[in-house]
Amino acid sequence: MPEPHRRLPHHHRRRPLGPLGPLVLVRHGQSTANAEGRFTGWVDVPLTRHGEAEAVAAAGLLGGAGLLPDVVHTSVMVRSIRSADLMLAALDRMWIPVRRTWRLNERQYGALTGRDKREVRAEAGGERYRVWRRSMHGRPAPLPPADLARLRADPRYAALRPDGVPAVESLADMAARVAPYWADVLAPQLREGRTVLVVAHGNALRALCVILDRLTDPEAARLDIPTAAPLRYDFTAELRPLTRGGVYLDPETARARAALVAAEGRR
Amino acid sequence: MPEPHRRLPHHHRRRPLGPLGPLVLVRHGQSTANAEGRFTGWVDVPLTRHGEAEAVAAAGLLGGAGLLPDVVHTSVMVRSIRSADLMLAALDRMWIPVRRTWRLNERQYGALTGRDKREVRAEAGGERYRVWRRSMHGRPAPLPPADLARLRADPRYAALRPDGVPAVESLADMAARVAPYWADVLAPQLREGRTVLVVAHGNALRALCVILDRLTDPEAARLDIPTAAPLRYDFTAELRPLTRGGVYLDPETARARAALVAAEGRR
Repeated sequence: MPEPHRRLPHHHRRRPLGPLGPLVLVRHGQSTANAEGRFTGWVDVPLTRHGEAEAVAAAGLLGGAGLLPDVVHTSVMVRSIRSADLMLAALDRMWIPVRRTWRLNERQYGALTGRDKREVRAEAGGERYRVWRRSMHGRPAPLPPADLARLRADPRYAALRPDGVPAVESLADMAARVAPYWADVLAPQLREGRTVLVVAHGNALRALCVILDRLTDPEAARLDIPTAAPLRYDFTAELRPLTRGGVYLDPETARARAALVAAEGRR
Repeated sequence: MPEPHRRLPHHHRRRPLGPLGPLVLVRHGQSTANAEGRFTGWVDVPLTRHGEAEAVAAAGLLGGAGLLPDVVHTSVMVRSIRSADLMLAALDRMWIPVRRTWRLNERQYGALTGRDKREVRAEAGGERYRVWRRSMHGRPAPLPPADLARLRADPRYAALRPDGVPAVESLADMAARVAPYWADVLAPQLREGRTVLVVAHGNALRALCVILDRLTDPEAARLDIPTAAPLRYDFTAELRPLTRGGVYLDPETARARAALVAAEGRR
């Protein structure tokens, strides 16, 4: 008879050679800047009441699907952190391990930060607006030096090198900064069979999809991530998506909200 | 001239051989069970509105003293997690690293769990009540088997061995389970110069004080930890407290609330 004292911890016993864990991606609920139609980037804005309700509703979808996260990852921005906190409270999973990283931050939108999307589109024209906002390699002008200096003085980025806070990022730049977090942190947890929840930003999740689905440039340009719509990925043993693009838990709502994102700036 | 690219990360540069970081201990705000005068232990109860306000006020004391935490530790119980979340939101520090551990859980009160303190004192008499509640080695009867089985099935304790959830604990038992977390997690962070915040429970913090101050049994029996009153420890290079017992940021409020804790069960 086995001695209870010699048994391995429960999670090792339960999943010795089991399947890989699912990955659930959730964009934060509506922020005040979303509501105003502005480029937000690395500006730290709170959720609206509507955004808080969206996060709680997203948790309801997870609970309904029996998708209980074992671990959660957020950016270091409050709209992502607060969305995750609300989801975990609704799921009675506030106790799971949490990790926050600047690598999951929203895209650094440079000189567009804080600007009204319709104004930018009207000034720059539809094509430049599209390239800046949706293409793989488009980069707007960099953040003004004074704004960049303020960001580099923010204690949450103190551990980065002085030049570690980017002045502007393309989607490809973002994929490059998200990739180490995928390889070193998220992928190992999935291999352990854990259900991994990532609550982050529209472009951070687009960057992750670029990596997971090996999106071409035109595919990436067509990808819009709706707010607070849980997107589930399951994986082969080689950590390739079973379904390319993942599966939304509530496809209809996701489609409707993605269409809203695609139309931003066109009023 | 040094090349910016070769510089070490900021937090390494700032504190190469600097002083040890301060440790701030905060008991969670009033919970529903506190308000009802019950032994709570490992039952997961929420904060009251008053408890939420206490946590925010505690954050105000930290901010006023310039004590901005670099890292936060909580138990896996919502009253501790929520208190920490409220404090970090009030300090605009939601982005700092967070770690949750069952080792900082409240004491397992065994058969006393959920019982009214006045009733227990009336039944058992003042001396047994005092030994159970405040002495170093007193243990009430263990948790009934059905309650213990339910606790052992809780997914938050899945990583513990089947016999890892205690049926009852003395303060000495708690010090034994808190000690590895102090030695392996908290102490190394203090040696790195970080400001470490621990938001936990009355007896988890008493256990930590037993370790830090090497309390005698009678000293431990006299120690009451007030709710949401930040207690600061600074350390010598050998990680011994500069001031035995630490220093409350607001000594008067701390004294008044500790007196309330001491009087619990006497109505």
